[in-house]
Amino acid sequence: MKKIVSFGELLIRLSSPGYQRLSQAKQLTIDFGGAEANVAVSLAQFGDSVSYVTRVPQNDMVASALHHLKGFGIATSDVLFGGDRIGLYYYENGAIGRSSKVVYDRNYSSLVTLEKGMIDWDTVFDGADWFHWSGITPAVSESATLALKEGLEIATKKGLTISMDYNFRGNLWKWGKSADEVMPELMKFNHVMSGTHPDVDVLAGKIDDYLFEEEGQKIIKENPNCKIVVFTSRGTISASHNTWSGALYDGEKVYRSQQYDLTHIVDRVGGGDSFMAALIYGLRNLKNHQETIEFAVAASAIKHTIEGDQNICSKQEVLDFIKTNGLGKIIR
Amino acid sequence: MKKIVSFGELLIRLSSPGYQRLSQAKQLTIDFGGAEANVAVSLAQFGDSVSYVTRVPQNDMVASALHHLKGFGIATSDVLFGGDRIGLYYYENGAIGRSSKVVYDRNYSSLVTLEKGMIDWDTVFDGADWFHWSGITPAVSESATLALKEGLEIATKKGLTISMDYNFRGNLWKWGKSADEVMPELMKFNHVMSGTHPDVDVLAGKIDDYLFEEEGQKIIKENPNCKIVVFTSRGTISASHNTWSGALYDGEKVYRSQQYDLTHIVDRVGGGDSFMAALIYGLRNLKNHQETIEFAVAASAIKHTIEGDQNICSKQEVLDFIKTNGLGKIIR
Amino acid sequence: MKKIVSFGELLIRLSSPGYQRLSQAKQLTIDFGGAEANVAVSLAQFGDSVSYVTRVPQNDMVASALHHLKGFGIATSDVLFGGDRIGLYYYENGAIGRSSKVVYDRNYSSLVTLEKGMIDWDTVFDGADWFHWSGITPAVSESATLALKEGLEIATKKGLTISMDYNFRGNLWKWGKSADEVMPELMKFNHVMSGTHPDVDVLAGKIDDYLFEEEGQKIIKENPNCKIVVFTSRGTISASHNTWSGALYDGEKVYRSQQYDLTHIVDRVGGGDSFMAALIYGLRNLKNHQETIEFAVAASAIKHTIEGDQNICSKQEVLDFIKTNGLGKIIR
Amino acid sequence: MKKIVSFGELLIRLSSPGYQRLSQAKQLTIDFGGAEANVAVSLAQFGDSVSYVTRVPQNDMVASALHHLKGFGIATSDVLFGGDRIGLYYYENGAIGRSSKVVYDRNYSSLVTLEKGMIDWDTVFDGADWFHWSGITPAVSESATLALKEGLEIATKKGLTISMDYNFRGNLWKWGKSADEVMPELMKFNHVMSGTHPDVDVLAGKIDDYLFEEEGQKIIKENPNCKIVVFTSRGTISASHNTWSGALYDGEKVYRSQQYDLTHIVDRVGGGDSFMAALIYGLRNLKNHQETIEFAVAASAIKHTIEGDQNICSKQEVLDFIKTNGLGKIIR
Amino acid sequence: MKKIVSFGELLIRLSSPGYQRLSQAKQLTIDFGGAEANVAVSLAQFGDSVSYVTRVPQNDMVASALHHLKGFGIATSDVLFGGDRIGLYYYENGAIGRSSKVVYDRNYSSLVTLEKGMIDWDTVFDGADWFHWSGITPAVSESATLALKEGLEIATKKGLTISMDYNFRGNLWKWGKSADEVMPELMKFNHVMSGTHPDVDVLAGKIDDYLFEEEGQKIIKENPNCKIVVFTSRGTISASHNTWSGALYDGEKVYRSQQYDLTHIVDRVGGGDSFMAALIYGLRNLKNHQETIEFAVAASAIKHTIEGDQNICSKQEVLDFIKTNGLGKIIR
Amino acid sequence: MKKIVSFGELLIRLSSPGYQRLSQAKQLTIDFGGAEANVAVSLAQFGDSVSYVTRVPQNDMVASALHHLKGFGIATSDVLFGGDRIGLYYYENGAIGRSSKVVYDRNYSSLVTLEKGMIDWDTVFDGADWFHWSGITPAVSESATLALKEGLEIATKKGLTISMDYNFRGNLWKWGKSADEVMPELMKFNHVMSGTHPDVDVLAGKIDDYLFEEEGQKIIKENPNCKIVVFTSRGTISASHNTWSGALYDGEKVYRSQQYDLTHIVDRVGGGDSFMAALIYGLRNLKNHQETIEFAVAASAIKHTIEGDQNICSKQEVLDFIKTNGLGKIIR
Repeated sequence: MKKIVSFGELLIRLSSPGYQRLSQAKQLTIDFGGAEANVAVSLAQFGDSVSYVTRVPQNDMVASALHHLKGFGIATSDVLFGGDRIGLYYYENGAIGRSSKVVYDRNYSSLVTLEKGMIDWDTVFDGADWFHWSGITPAVSESATLALKEGLEIATKKGLTISMDYNFRGNLWKWGKSADEVMPELMKFNHVMSGTHPDVDVLAGKIDDYLFEEEGQKIIKENPNCKIVVFTSRGTISASHNTWSGALYDGEKVYRSQQYDLTHIVDRVGGGDSFMAALIYGLRNLKNHQETIEFAVAASAIKHTIEGDQNICSKQEVLDFIKTNGLGKIIR
Repeated sequence: MKKIVSFGELLIRLSSPGYQRLSQAKQLTIDFGGAEANVAVSLAQFGDSVSYVTRVPQNDMVASALHHLKGFGIATSDVLFGGDRIGLYYYENGAIGRSSKVVYDRNYSSLVTLEKGMIDWDTVFDGADWFHWSGITPAVSESATLALKEGLEIATKKGLTISMDYNFRGNLWKWGKSADEVMPELMKFNHVMSGTHPDVDVLAGKIDDYLFEEEGQKIIKENPNCKIVVFTSRGTISASHNTWSGALYDGEKVYRSQQYDLTHIVDRVGGGDSFMAALIYGLRNLKNHQETIEFAVAASAIKHTIEGDQNICSKQEVLDFIKTNGLGKIIR
Repeated sequence: MKKIVSFGELLIRLSSPGYQRLSQAKQLTIDFGGAEANVAVSLAQFGDSVSYVTRVPQNDMVASALHHLKGFGIATSDVLFGGDRIGLYYYENGAIGRSSKVVYDRNYSSLVTLEKGMIDWDTVFDGADWFHWSGITPAVSESATLALKEGLEIATKKGLTISMDYNFRGNLWKWGKSADEVMPELMKFNHVMSGTHPDVDVLAGKIDDYLFEEEGQKIIKENPNCKIVVFTSRGTISASHNTWSGALYDGEKVYRSQQYDLTHIVDRVGGGDSFMAALIYGLRNLKNHQETIEFAVAASAIKHTIEGDQNICSKQEVLDFIKTNGLGKIIR
Repeated sequence: MKKIVSFGELLIRLSSPGYQRLSQAKQLTIDFGGAEANVAVSLAQFGDSVSYVTRVPQNDMVASALHHLKGFGIATSDVLFGGDRIGLYYYENGAIGRSSKVVYDRNYSSLVTLEKGMIDWDTVFDGADWFHWSGITPAVSESATLALKEGLEIATKKGLTISMDYNFRGNLWKWGKSADEVMPELMKFNHVMSGTHPDVDVLAGKIDDYLFEEEGQKIIKENPNCKIVVFTSRGTISASHNTWSGALYDGEKVYRSQQYDLTHIVDRVGGGDSFMAALIYGLRNLKNHQETIEFAVAASAIKHTIEGDQNICSKQEVLDFIKTNGLGKIIR
Repeated sequence: MKKIVSFGELLIRLSSPGYQRLSQAKQLTIDFGGAEANVAVSLAQFGDSVSYVTRVPQNDMVASALHHLKGFGIATSDVLFGGDRIGLYYYENGAIGRSSKVVYDRNYSSLVTLEKGMIDWDTVFDGADWFHWSGITPAVSESATLALKEGLEIATKKGLTISMDYNFRGNLWKWGKSADEVMPELMKFNHVMSGTHPDVDVLAGKIDDYLFEEEGQKIIKENPNCKIVVFTSRGTISASHNTWSGALYDGEKVYRSQQYDLTHIVDRVGGGDSFMAALIYGLRNLKNHQETIEFAVAASAIKHTIEGDQNICSKQEVLDFIKTNGLGKIIR
Repeated sequence: MKKIVSFGELLIRLSSPGYQRLSQAKQLTIDFGGAEANVAVSLAQFGDSVSYVTRVPQNDMVASALHHLKGFGIATSDVLFGGDRIGLYYYENGAIGRSSKVVYDRNYSSLVTLEKGMIDWDTVFDGADWFHWSGITPAVSESATLALKEGLEIATKKGLTISMDYNFRGNLWKWGKSADEVMPELMKFNHVMSGTHPDVDVLAGKIDDYLFEEEGQKIIKENPNCKIVVFTSRGTISASHNTWSGALYDGEKVYRSQQYDLTHIVDRVGGGDSFMAALIYGLRNLKNHQETIEFAVAASAIKHTIEGDQNICSKQEVLDFIKTNGLGKIIR
């Protein structure tokens, strides 16, 4: 099977332990993240062949991050070395009405200063049939946007399927243009993408299929390459308790997943990334769109019980989760 | 703005990690507490000027406690050095039907052996317009009671506003007299104080305003200086799940706060202290009594998500919590 | 009072911290377990005299395990030294829909290679009036089964009361015969034993008394020595949230306990063992069967809030729990 | 073999991790100590039968301490419950020229308030042939001194051998009388005791036998019951590096041990206690005085490599240490 | 007494635990550093009045750093908020022949982007009589150099004493000019400064006074304001073992300190800063230059035993260290 | 460049933290080891292409171990899955005269039950030019010995260079034959191997070249394929302090390395493995035998400063270490 290329910024995540606030912490737990790296980690665990592409400086923390990714079997041979720093973020876990909090320190990173022409996309895409990116890359700088666009053009020329997660982050997009100015041109390349679900009451559980259909049709109309639009619906009861479900529109029909009640959230960072990875896996390997959306939502439901950005979980565990309907009986 | 003086016993808190019982623990986490120190910490974070007064011996653990308080900007220059020991308590966190547990080791502390005449109250109150104390000080010894009374008299003479949290602790009050014998005389000095909400079913959520009114009127009648009586209502579903709301009676009207559902409690110690601090802040700085009681209850709702005795949280975070109705969406 | 002998395999438990998956862990927490050791630990804390019998090699980890048991006042003088290794298991704590997971590494342990004739049962039962075993011993090897049977015969001859917890584990029973082939002969010795509650909807809370009665009568009929059959009913809402209750059938009547709502489970391993221990305690020390089943279910409800395999909790704490109906108010 | 009774104050030790100063620590490691408890722990590990006697209140921290002692097989059935608190001390580990530091918080402990008549010494000494005490008990209070004296008188009447470690602590002895006023009367009861080695240059390694002989003779002359006087010689090069040796004088001859070079000290607290325990063991079990002093010095040399107050080490490990001359080759 | 102003970059230090390499670490310990902050921390502990000036963004990690500094009593009211990020560095502790290692991530920090005119130096120097800076500030950027120069000019105009630590770091100085091009002009302002000791064999212990004198005279000649030149001599036997001494030249005479043998180094970062702080303290408070250089060298010898960048140690501890000649006897 | 195949048993290492004895530990640190895996890790870091071959069961702990190895870029595609368990060992770190201690629990592992015919050696050696094994494999079982011999025969047939580390472990070799009976036949296949240095006084530093020469000649005579014999000389002053050097004999000449003084050992496990790996690297990549033995000894000297079994260190770090003569100056 051909490989998937996932491209984006690699991040160090430094979290306060337990429910400590960052200002209380005397120790920080190291994890590695970044939306596209998280997608790569899930895909590698499901059994797909993945190459992760980013730009980082050469130092011991980066070595540790790459060791972590290579451990999953992700190819990192096309990672570009250069620039000044690897981005990082500090994270504190919320509870009940106190939100989880991210303090970014990712300005001036090697990915932010990446420029068009630096990445040898032809080599990167050699042996690949899928390219995944997210809306975080165009959010961080103009030069990274141009480098990404170059990649999208070459991927398109080489006939790769292109998938994207919008991943809007209000605390990014500071380089001068807004998401609305930049994203439409880039989204034109997508075959698979996340949409925004309609603005209705998720908690009430009343989103009608036609609302997803309308939104999906609109996206497909604006982006003619696009064949699949996916949606996640998060109902926020509190930082500790969410509901979670998803939908997939393929231009013809809306496929809805089961809704999960996430009553004791361990860590919700990377929920969307794990959804996107499982969706890509499903589109490439599972029988149909219904199975695919169920797989994607179940996988990302599991993510909410896993510490760190990444969904440490195998394909079999996702399937068992679906089969037992998420009851969580002890295995011994 | 003039400063607030908070006076009482400083405590070391030693907690078993996670949900370990004390008898299982091989490590203890150090925090610092004491009701009046907790009040000082919240007030300093909200932006008020605070001086904390206590009596402690001179050793490395006390140095660490004072470093902690000074870090918040609390003035500790009137802390008195002397006596034999700093009180401490061991703490284990409960869950579901297993209660959180406090094992006190505070006998013979420097505050317990504090005597009238030791504190130079005139200096202490210099530049102050508010004096806060709690029912824990008279609970620990007769000599501390007399020292406190001396302070209350001088504060009154100097025209300070006096606030008190009753803070009844059944495991204290061992020195010979009961709370009922000692407290009434001291409460006469109060302008602001906590009352006991009427004995009705909190969980059912049916406390009528008139019940608070009756209780408030009774307190004001017995303590003619008193202008404000406040109440917190805790509905204990389990050690992990409480409901939480409050009321303020100003002699004319009962102001009720929103009720919060605290579904995944992290640490409930200091809940009342954070309420009292936010109340004092509100009375001094916010527009009206409704805003004040909402601010006090929201602040103390947040406390239940914070490890340690103290409410590590800014004024802005309390306001955001109120605005988002405690939904706990991730911030990034 | 005469002593209780509890016999079975001693295990090291190595758990990943917090909610980490085993494959994420860089540190493991050491606990000691094994169903029958867990029973011994509870009984010793309740105040009964207990001797624990097992077979282990002589090394530092075993020394640590025995130190742990002796600390509770359990007699370990009849522990047999020999064989190659002490069994262990790795444990990760589940959450919501992700199940807790046990990875066994207990093959070839000293208990697995225990043979008939090795244990001097006459000495072991000297001064004892009760013998407790579980279905785990016959699950691990044929030779251990024969050694156990020898013990049961001698215990019977000496007039001890015999209790058993069925403890079916699908991941054991690999040595050639199935539980159904082996257990009936051994169960004939029992005076007290756990049964399987009827296959009805626990969550719906609709188990009728007559269903327990039917099952109990069947067990008593097949095992004429048996006087008491007990049942636990676990309703699995998720890995974090279960319901929990129990029933006792004494040949005449079904005694039902209160049902507890275990909404924030800390660690459910050893729940059944703590139930069985409290049941034995109740049968020996409490007034009647109603009190006994309430005590057993309350004790095991508390276990779900305790880290590790063992129910670190005194008799008084169980009684307080019953009295306060598991409200979990803070004690200070 | 008859049992040894060790009597004195039980302490909680709370240490900052690694080389952190106490004022930097956010976590403290729990150990249990007290000179006479440390002696009991060593003796139990060497295989002697030991009963430990002290007075403590009943709480979870005491339960943990007693669990720890019972785990070694030490009898605690004569521990007396009562009084207000268990003493504790905070400990920070020194390095090079920064001394290790002990901050005591042991005033008003249950042992300090122990009074003559509280301990039933007849029961305590039942089945015993040896009584061990140290100079710390008379240092803490007059009433504890009187209780100790009562024990010494009854032990003498019952014909027990009495051993003592002088253990002078400058930070104790605050109750009104000095060591020089109190100790001589108590030392009269001793058969075995530690002396102070003559004031010569330990580092230079030049202490002549006759100096120990002179000092020993003087002690024996003043205390006619005394048959054995022992000395340890610590050469302090730095907090991380000491030399260590010992001598035993039996009224006839001085037996000198090998000198060890303790180049990388892990924890020197309890060094003297482990020496005293091994000495008692040797006097009761080993062939001659030369073997005894070598065993005592080797055991206490090992203590300097063990975290905590107590010498976690078996008789065999001490013998191997002597045999390999403390080379420290890896065992695998 | 008037206050000392210390100005420079505040850094977060993230260290791997124990001797782990950074690439092995899963947790990092948080400390705060920066040469001039370290100087401020020592001075505040010795009892001087200190104001620390830097530029940082407003976030939770900065809040934690400032809480830490304020805890020592350091005034932070003149800290400037602005810019993008706080600099940080990763640290791993070396051993024997493996060097300790610093991985900087301090580019683009708020101090690096500080510009002339941003700091209100007149306010900063109000009530001050001493200004301390180091060679790190001109190393990080041209704009920071200009801001510093502005401060030096105003300090000079106001008659403050100016001290400087050269602190050459090969991994900094990347902004275009070399230290040799930039420093001379700035050093002209100094009254007190560190020099480089002559290039001779420190380990051999053979540095003659005249060598310090020659170097001191040269510096004083080039910088006519300069009255005091100080030198530290580090003999590197290994990462774990150094020798350490110092010298002070006052234009007339060389004062030499005792040499310390640092045989078991805990953490040598901040050794120079603690020397400089103690030197400033000595020049302001001690009797003469000999006492001053002994105090400075002893204080910084202690630093090598303290975890973190800062010398957690009081004036009294330094004096005791000198008096006992750094023997490190236990205090109890 | 062609790849190196390293074959042997993969082990989990569980270590007590710091200097805790295993019986004191409540937490264990997870590392992964096994002599041949350690060799693979070093070679991969130096830049060689390595495939690691072993036999393990499929479970989460094995997944973690393989993730760890893959992170270094080691190929694990020829790892065989099967058997019952992965071997493990418990480790406690010694100090001064207390030896480090290994408690093995590796019986019945999947490598122990490996049989001839299970490994497809032709596939394993595809693309390889070097095969490394150690004396541990024949020590664990007869069947593993036969499987190894099969590999040696096929490697020889395919013309691979074969290297071996003798790695004698007294606690293994329990399966019926001794090392002396089994090893000679296997050693015949070697081209490169470790010898035992002559029994002379290492500490005195007086090993003459001719002694290595005699021993080397003897080995080469007995094993005609053998071209290179290497020796390490460890002088054990204590568990904390060793000397370390090495020699290489190539049939013509003895090449001696510098001797290092390892004064503050962090972890000496894996010292020999890191030597062997660096030797293989040197023989394949460095200029001559002198450089090779210096590289091997320097690399393994560094290992003594690294926590865990494996030498986390790059080629450049080894070269810098040699260049600076192991002075350990801080890098910043």
